[in-house]
Amino acid sequence: MDYQGILDEVMAAVWPLIGQGRVANYIPALAAVDPNRFGMALATVDGDLFGVGDWRVPFSIQSISKVFTLALTLARDGDDVWRRVGKEPSGNPFNSLVQLEYEQGIPRNPFINAGALVITDRLLQLTGDARGVLRDFLRAESGNPALDFDPVVAVSEAEHGHRNAALAHFMASYGNIENPVAEVLEHYFWQCSLAASCADLARACGFLARHGQRADGERLLTRSQAKQVNAIMLTCGTYDAAGEFAYRVGLPGKSGVGGGIIAVIPNRCGLCVWSPGLDARGNSVAGVEALDRFTTLTGLSVF
Amino acid sequence: MDYQGILDEVMAAVWPLIGQGRVANYIPALAAVDPNRFGMALATVDGDLFGVGDWRVPFSIQSISKVFTLALTLARDGDDVWRRVGKEPSGNPFNSLVQLEYEQGIPRNPFINAGALVITDRLLQLTGDARGVLRDFLRAESGNPALDFDPVVAVSEAEHGHRNAALAHFMASYGNIENPVAEVLEHYFWQCSLAASCADLARACGFLARHGQRADGERLLTRSQAKQVNAIMLTCGTYDAAGEFAYRVGLPGKSGVGGGIIAVIPNRCGLCVWSPGLDARGNSVAGVEALDRFTTLTGLSVF
Amino acid sequence: MDYQGILDEVMAAVWPLIGQGRVANYIPALAAVDPNRFGMALATVDGDLFGVGDWRVPFSIQSISKVFTLALTLARDGDDVWRRVGKEPSGNPFNSLVQLEYEQGIPRNPFINAGALVITDRLLQLTGDARGVLRDFLRAESGNPALDFDPVVAVSEAEHGHRNAALAHFMASYGNIENPVAEVLEHYFWQCSLAASCADLARACGFLARHGQRADGERLLTRSQAKQVNAIMLTCGTYDAAGEFAYRVGLPGKSGVGGGIIAVIPNRCGLCVWSPGLDARGNSVAGVEALDRFTTLTGLSVF
Amino acid sequence: MDYQGILDEVMAAVWPLIGQGRVANYIPALAAVDPNRFGMALATVDGDLFGVGDWRVPFSIQSISKVFTLALTLARDGDDVWRRVGKEPSGNPFNSLVQLEYEQGIPRNPFINAGALVITDRLLQLTGDARGVLRDFLRAESGNPALDFDPVVAVSEAEHGHRNAALAHFMASYGNIENPVAEVLEHYFWQCSLAASCADLARACGFLARHGQRADGERLLTRSQAKQVNAIMLTCGTYDAAGEFAYRVGLPGKSGVGGGIIAVIPNRCGLCVWSPGLDARGNSVAGVEALDRFTTLTGLSVF
Repeated sequence: MDYQGILDEVMAAVWPLIGQGRVANYIPALAAVDPNRFGMALATVDGDLFGVGDWRVPFSIQSISKVFTLALTLARDGDDVWRRVGKEPSGNPFNSLVQLEYEQGIPRNPFINAGALVITDRLLQLTGDARGVLRDFLRAESGNPALDFDPVVAVSEAEHGHRNAALAHFMASYGNIENPVAEVLEHYFWQCSLAASCADLARACGFLARHGQRADGERLLTRSQAKQVNAIMLTCGTYDAAGEFAYRVGLPGKSGVGGGIIAVIPNRCGLCVWSPGLDARGNSVAGVEALDRFTTLTGLSVF
Repeated sequence: MDYQGILDEVMAAVWPLIGQGRVANYIPALAAVDPNRFGMALATVDGDLFGVGDWRVPFSIQSISKVFTLALTLARDGDDVWRRVGKEPSGNPFNSLVQLEYEQGIPRNPFINAGALVITDRLLQLTGDARGVLRDFLRAESGNPALDFDPVVAVSEAEHGHRNAALAHFMASYGNIENPVAEVLEHYFWQCSLAASCADLARACGFLARHGQRADGERLLTRSQAKQVNAIMLTCGTYDAAGEFAYRVGLPGKSGVGGGIIAVIPNRCGLCVWSPGLDARGNSVAGVEALDRFTTLTGLSVF
Repeated sequence: MDYQGILDEVMAAVWPLIGQGRVANYIPALAAVDPNRFGMALATVDGDLFGVGDWRVPFSIQSISKVFTLALTLARDGDDVWRRVGKEPSGNPFNSLVQLEYEQGIPRNPFINAGALVITDRLLQLTGDARGVLRDFLRAESGNPALDFDPVVAVSEAEHGHRNAALAHFMASYGNIENPVAEVLEHYFWQCSLAASCADLARACGFLARHGQRADGERLLTRSQAKQVNAIMLTCGTYDAAGEFAYRVGLPGKSGVGGGIIAVIPNRCGLCVWSPGLDARGNSVAGVEALDRFTTLTGLSVF
Repeated sequence: MDYQGILDEVMAAVWPLIGQGRVANYIPALAAVDPNRFGMALATVDGDLFGVGDWRVPFSIQSISKVFTLALTLARDGDDVWRRVGKEPSGNPFNSLVQLEYEQGIPRNPFINAGALVITDRLLQLTGDARGVLRDFLRAESGNPALDFDPVVAVSEAEHGHRNAALAHFMASYGNIENPVAEVLEHYFWQCSLAASCADLARACGFLARHGQRADGERLLTRSQAKQVNAIMLTCGTYDAAGEFAYRVGLPGKSGVGGGIIAVIPNRCGLCVWSPGLDARGNSVAGVEALDRFTTLTGLSVF
């Protein structure tokens, strides 16, 4: 398939949407991003790489990190991890706290903040360095040794992190955070602060297109575990818009408030798109549209 | 593909699970079903039909009806229907009422009871006979003119229908039920009471495998609408187990408390499995396992 | 004490507030009331009666009826009634449904709608005519044989009664409504539609000032039961403003969306004030202020 | 009135209940208390003091501290404090978090933990030493210069304080905690850890019986502010049993999980009872019964 031609066509088609939406502004470091950025990259399972626009420019990966920390934890912990976090969609964010109370401190899935905090807590227990393990993994999979944290973002997250602190303490009151809360939060904020480009992330999610196999051929996840991660991405990966993302794009995907979205086409490729303007539900306006166009043009949808 | 051989193998594999779980008992008419039943059918887009076990025995379709009423309404109403019901997963059933209040009487999706009531209300407005339209559609698609309501079940549902009545009145207080509540409820209970076999339902969901085209070649839904229905089935079709169903089975599916589950493999076939024993979340124990085996054996999973 | 002089002084003081607030408009029959009405009456335990303004004009008693149906049920049922309804404040109305779900269909107290529906259901079981028993009681206690229902209001309530129907069906699904829901609702709406004047109601609540003794000397409630009703009025009688009412007025009181409020000074008198303009929480603006003034002038507060 | 005789009679009457219920055990320091303790004291507005049983034995005041921190803040802040905390009952504790979310970080009243944290935060802003100010106030009002914190309890509270930390961070995310969360929590835990006897507390709540006037004649609160505190005690002072406390005891009261309860009879006296065994809602079994008996014997109830 002529991926380069398709990416060019996609960018031309979404051009009018670039700059639309609202850049995340809950921390100053994110609010400063140029809203007119757009990049998209595709990395095949065979190692070919294609890209358009700002596809080499690093951006703040934010919640996209949740996919990788889940995979890294699952690789070490196996099904045990599902004792501390669920696999089901969570419905409206409005209910997050009462639901957490109703389910005795067990978050609905690893992609809501509460669930990602549990995963970071577990990864910290298993490795002693949850953020370092994530950075090293992304460096290895992307082939980019310069990939790194953005300390300004990390510190800024921590300063505005009361809601995550509330979630972590609340779960700790149920015994579902086992390291000191402050330590878990620190690792979590640093994970979110990682800066990577579309090229980096399209490559880094390749293991999900390869049913669990890393770039160097080593197995990270079993086939079944890779399926678990993909299924959770499809049902829970785009905040309160997973249903709409499923029928517009029809691929496992995960978005972040930095404006990035990764998506996986099993057996074929990893994708990453980035454009900072967000819709009301926190997903990149041009990014969702680009993936929608891509699957329409290629017919590579799940449904 | 040797579908008959695969179905035989699936039935042999799930044999030990048949009879496990609990038969739905909230109405006497359902509680009387023999828990040791098991049937499975597959209808290809080309019209071939395969089956095993009790695949010709009619059972109570219950919530499986929600897929068809949604499609029939979407066919007439187009995207307007999404003004009255959402497309997103709903999280824990515990929150259903408060969520409905929070979202001003707009249910999260058409597969929770509140959403299905809205769809029945709309179909009633559009056709004057919501239950009749559904029966006629199922008869036509299944090629079974004897397919019919079970009046004992319908009456029994009505007698135990206080919770659905509460939902309907609650939405009516927001103006989101437009016919008289009693009338909507009656059509809804009769729709749920339809009795159909695995053979009937595997055929009847063929239009979703054919991207919206009915058995007679006529178009019911646009390609995009068919994709919407499939996506909602994948993300919301199996109560509070959609995430787990997604990674175990990886197909758009919809279950009912009668023990039936339909599933769709786009471009290829419709499936229906039935076994009355339910797990804690209301899905057929042997049915989910059968679909899991089927996708494992055939490699026909989405992920 | 010179009650007449005090009432005159109170009316003069609240004069500027009369007409402020918003008249209840959820049914046309209530919306038509003249907002500039104001009346206040005081009936001593010895039988003296004082009044100012429109104190002889009948108005729609609405939720004030809940006090009397509770007393009539308690008189027949004793403490058994507390198995079906609680005695505790309910917090924000927003939570009413989820709380009802959490507490398995048992409403928090008899003065929220759900609780009043349970009381009406029980009174209907005990007497066969919940609305008739209430009318007769109010006629007897007020000494006004012309006191009667307003059929226009009753019918209008029924036509806009979806939310109450939802509550009743929801409780019926837990077995906490035992008569047919439609019948319970009808009695409830007719009870709310009773029209009475300040003079009527000030006299009718005299039994709470007399520790349970009716106007004719007969005992309706035990001393302890009368205390129960008064305590519930103080903690739950004015919707989501019970705390504020407690410290401004400091008396057991019950308001209705018709703009009426009754209040009780144990050992001394029953009070009723009426002015249709409501504040944001559904209590009469001039009415609350009048009772505040009254207790300030007389020093007859609880605290 | 022969208060000493009445207290003797009350203790004799509640004797069989002493030791019943469950001692609070969420922190080891509280769990170690002898369940067979019982003491009761009464301090008249004129300075007389009466007591029975263990009325001179210090115990952990816990949530009783909330009354005093509210009063100390109200004295300095006036009605401004009500911009950050409500005055209404909160209903079931189950809803605390969702309600806090619904009301944008404003707790329902100052006697639930969230509300008390806001009060401590404000008192800390106003004085620079929220715990010191409280200790000094209690020493002055009780006339007991030895009254002090229990550091073992304070440290133990902090170690088990995840739920309070969650509440504080959650409110901080709405801007309703203004000091560093850790500092607010520390002051809060130390306030709760104060150890005082029934004699100390009966005297210390005298200012509420004297309409705001302190033991030395100085005015702490206006008459209206004292009324506010008393009204909130009556409607919100005994966790989810305020309604029942209102009709059994009929006095403004505040309980703590240490087993203490203070109560106020305006114009007359302050009361304190202590017995560590708690009922299911967190109130002292023998303590509530003792106050019930006291008001029955003296006829000093509000209703």
